[in-house]
Amino acid sequence: MTTKPIILISNDDGYQADGITKLAAIARNFGDVVIVAPAHQQSGKSSAITGGIPLKLTKISEEEGLVVYSCDGTPADCVKLAFYTLFKEKHPDLLLSGINHGSNASVNAVYSGTIGAAMEGCINHVSSIAFSSTQMEKVLDIEKAVPYISHIIKQTLESPLPKGTMLNVNFPYEEIKKATVCREADARWSEEYLPLADDPHSYTLAGYFDNREPDSKDTDMWALSHETLSIVPIKVDKTDYEFMNQLKDIYGK
Amino acid sequence: MTTKPIILISNDDGYQADGITKLAAIARNFGDVVIVAPAHQQSGKSSAITGGIPLKLTKISEEEGLVVYSCDGTPADCVKLAFYTLFKEKHPDLLLSGINHGSNASVNAVYSGTIGAAMEGCINHVSSIAFSSTQMEKVLDIEKAVPYISHIIKQTLESPLPKGTMLNVNFPYEEIKKATVCREADARWSEEYLPLADDPHSYTLAGYFDNREPDSKDTDMWALSHETLSIVPIKVDKTDYEFMNQLKDIYGK
Repeated sequence: MTTKPIILISNDDGYQADGITKLAAIARNFGDVVIVAPAHQQSGKSSAITGGIPLKLTKISEEEGLVVYSCDGTPADCVKLAFYTLFKEKHPDLLLSGINHGSNASVNAVYSGTIGAAMEGCINHVSSIAFSSTQMEKVLDIEKAVPYISHIIKQTLESPLPKGTMLNVNFPYEEIKKATVCREADARWSEEYLPLADDPHSYTLAGYFDNREPDSKDTDMWALSHETLSIVPIKVDKTDYEFMNQLKDIYGK
Repeated sequence: MTTKPIILISNDDGYQADGITKLAAIARNFGDVVIVAPAHQQSGKSSAITGGIPLKLTKISEEEGLVVYSCDGTPADCVKLAFYTLFKEKHPDLLLSGINHGSNASVNAVYSGTIGAAMEGCINHVSSIAFSSTQMEKVLDIEKAVPYISHIIKQTLESPLPKGTMLNVNFPYEEIKKATVCREADARWSEEYLPLADDPHSYTLAGYFDNREPDSKDTDMWALSHETLSIVPIKVDKTDYEFMNQLKDIYGK
């Protein structure tokens, strides 16, 4: 008897989102799936965690090969709590996060709760992959992406990721001609806010995405605008090793 | 007439915290200080941002060389909103975050709102430095750290950091014998939760810090346990360039 892999899935759009439902459907072809995802929308939560306030884990449904839980915390809370309550003896074989409704390419990875959930798996040495579509609609068209997502899941189950490194996978939805392994583009969100009409000291976040290197062909942003699925391996360790060595001459070794 | 540098300061413990007050006092020796910090405690918020809900910017006080604002958002929100409202024409010369009440060394940087605020400056190409004390008390003893903090501020004003790289500075408080430039230690927080007595499905975050490489001498964790202030340059770009090249053989270039 062979044991099926156990695949933990989380996201930041909540356990009822279309993206996580579709990701679970794909993942079930490769193992038994456990969803532990936020009870409510948790976009933009990055790797935020909840201290001091109790978090509730609620079993929503259970069927052969799929158990669904919600947790009233952040995406990172969901993964932490799943590891503690459901996977205390043995971690899952794979952690998937998403499919996010909206791109998490480039600097979006800094703010993304989808990445926050996957990063938590990565910190705990579980192979972790975040999937995001550039599409923001409530119902995602992932037809073109399914073969790629399946391939990446299969490949990662067979050959786990290096400890401390996860994959940030983003895809366009109208057409996907190929996949590419690439780096994060250098970008930022311009700081744009809309002042409230009746209170000029209150502001709502708006802004636009500012790709600082639109002509670089080796980035995730280039891939997404050229009918290409992007795979960026990203690390927990943010140390700038190159600059570290320069800085030692100034402050000491 | 020479213009004084403008130094923006934020944190995650709130604008009234002892750490930010003490950091501002040091920074005033080097320029005009503007504090834009959370109205309330925002620990563990990472780079979370607030969408959809208006944020209020409130001027708390103003004197020669020091203006204090609070913002009812996350640390990253504070910096974004400061850039949009107060520094639209010209960014500040330096962004400082802290002094955090508690260490942000190693994997703590993933969860830290102090780092989240500094990272936001870094994304916007402002030289940014996060300062944290291992001390968690409400009143920080920073006497031993002041000469180091002053030196790092002065040095960074004279020689700005590379774009996309910030400094994560942590210090012990009982004794500081030297500073060292080093890398993040590989660590995690063990997933420990305390179930509520009256609800076994609700849990409060507890846990302990698990340094996976306690014998490595080139890490921030080693420095902090050996009377040494640690300076770790960290990057916005999390791409794992080494693994990226291996992965291209599997998924395509």
